[in-house]
Amino acid sequence: MTVLHVPPVSRALDPAIQGAVDAKTKPLGALGVVETVAMQIARIQDTLTPRLRSCRLTLFAGDHGITGEGVSAYPQAVTRQMVENFLAGGAAANVFARTNGVYLQVVDAGVAGDPLEASGLISRRIAAGTRNSAVEAAMTAAQCEAALRAGEALGAAAGADAAAFGEMGIGNTSSATLVAHKLTGAGLDSLVGRGAGLDDAGMARKHAILERAAGRTAARLDPVDALWEYGGFEMVMMAGAMAGAARAGAVVLVDGFIAGVAALAAVRMAPALRDYLVFAHRSAEHGHGVVLAALDARPLLDLEMRLGEGTGALLAWPVLRCAAAMLSDMASFESAGVSGPG
Amino acid sequence: MTVLHVPPVSRALDPAIQGAVDAKTKPLGALGVVETVAMQIARIQDTLTPRLRSCRLTLFAGDHGITGEGVSAYPQAVTRQMVENFLAGGAAANVFARTNGVYLQVVDAGVAGDPLEASGLISRRIAAGTRNSAVEAAMTAAQCEAALRAGEALGAAAGADAAAFGEMGIGNTSSATLVAHKLTGAGLDSLVGRGAGLDDAGMARKHAILERAAGRTAARLDPVDALWEYGGFEMVMMAGAMAGAARAGAVVLVDGFIAGVAALAAVRMAPALRDYLVFAHRSAEHGHGVVLAALDARPLLDLEMRLGEGTGALLAWPVLRCAAAMLSDMASFESAGVSGPG
Repeated sequence: MTVLHVPPVSRALDPAIQGAVDAKTKPLGALGVVETVAMQIARIQDTLTPRLRSCRLTLFAGDHGITGEGVSAYPQAVTRQMVENFLAGGAAANVFARTNGVYLQVVDAGVAGDPLEASGLISRRIAAGTRNSAVEAAMTAAQCEAALRAGEALGAAAGADAAAFGEMGIGNTSSATLVAHKLTGAGLDSLVGRGAGLDDAGMARKHAILERAAGRTAARLDPVDALWEYGGFEMVMMAGAMAGAARAGAVVLVDGFIAGVAALAAVRMAPALRDYLVFAHRSAEHGHGVVLAALDARPLLDLEMRLGEGTGALLAWPVLRCAAAMLSDMASFESAGVSGPG
Repeated sequence: MTVLHVPPVSRALDPAIQGAVDAKTKPLGALGVVETVAMQIARIQDTLTPRLRSCRLTLFAGDHGITGEGVSAYPQAVTRQMVENFLAGGAAANVFARTNGVYLQVVDAGVAGDPLEASGLISRRIAAGTRNSAVEAAMTAAQCEAALRAGEALGAAAGADAAAFGEMGIGNTSSATLVAHKLTGAGLDSLVGRGAGLDDAGMARKHAILERAAGRTAARLDPVDALWEYGGFEMVMMAGAMAGAARAGAVVLVDGFIAGVAALAAVRMAPALRDYLVFAHRSAEHGHGVVLAALDARPLLDLEMRLGEGTGALLAWPVLRCAAAMLSDMASFESAGVSGPG
């Protein structure tokens, strides 16, 4: 298996970018995180006048064999029904994308049942859902490789200044929890969450099933092994897509828990990817904090959301646009004739 | 003096609004704070299908006599220079407003020096800056009344679904700190902050000056007295504008520390205003937490910003738009044919 490859960003302009931010008509540092993000975007685009005109959200859908164990509050059929909802324009991701001017495309990475036939759906299905990772590997190494490569190609072809990624897959907080567990070594207690809305009894069952699944393999796994043992097709494809988008020079907007785990796996394969990632929001899903810490990430938003679909990334997009515009369009003390401190 | 008047929002639709949010194709509560905001907007507009098409930012500028004591890192002339920067389109507020599709208008509430003559500037100047509140009342009761009424009229005439307010005034964190101190009874230690960027020596000086200013009057003041003793024209006018905008049915977007203090004073005068206020961001200015607690407010964003100008409100505006669109445009489980839990 070939690993992901992402070229490092250049830091040659860093002092000039910092100087440009500090010369803007505002107290030093007064735009806080917006300044940090502006500098990151400028670094990715290797310019003092970055532009973020367009953003595309690619929404990967896939099913999970482990749902047969009863790890989710919702039936597996919901994955497919939600894909239809995305295509009809009725989901939260559609509404946020329309409101914030983001292009949305939907990819069937491996939804259970017969192939979905719908205009506007991009079919990259690896299989009709993964196998049950509580008892066997979720996918073969070859399927994992195929998903990574399909994602890479989609990411590289996004054709937008920023690439956001979302997912839909009943059972995928279980899958993401197991991948995060094997990548970080963090205990399941700090990772297992309620997903789409488990009650206490459901949580206890989910925890027991994930303990059993985790026990099948070594305590720690390298990223590729963690992905094929426990990942989902939507998550693996997203990991590849993040690398592909970064290689194409896009700013990569990382959504919540599932996307965070995909990012973590991708960064473990291609460390240079980290510099392209902007973390959109802190999910209310229990395990997200562990994943963010492993990536040394400070998300832009904390709106207590836990929906997936890229909804957090869609809400964060205007902050990125404002950050880039700040650096490119704001006056400097000198150009505006404004006095400095003292 | 007449107090501010705001009619209460109706809660008649609350159960229906909650039902509509819960029927959307997402796990119960999965959009977190976005759901809370959507319900608030629906309540203000008294409808199950709220619309936020337009937002106007009104930016009030005013000067402060207390700057003569040395409470700010920047010279007083910067207020006037920044007004010119706003009118030329070069400030952070301009850039964020353009990026997020918000109308911006600039009001001279009382900038020091000769009246500013510029097309596009709305002149409502009460005086050429306040007096030095370290030694005497910042303004007369009549000036305070005039500023409140001018603000009320501007707020009521905003002609937008949402009204955001920003301010510019060197020295106005000192003014806001004193007003908050008199309204909440919180100690100056929990309120005095670095403003536009004081060093430690500057902070010690500011603290001593504010102690002296606070000592002129009783420990607690009613809102009108606090405003004329210590307020600024931009802050008082903003308090009036918030009430005026609410009375016109607008969603009122509250920016950071100064705007928070204006909101607190206005809510103390017209408690029904609270239901119209959406708090945009948590400022990095030290005293903001006290003000938010006094208003029982949980801001949407925390980006470590401390600039004022309405910049936090401008960044939060797309979140409000998405929240309203969520309620009006998202499919329900029933309409989309998506299965529920179980």
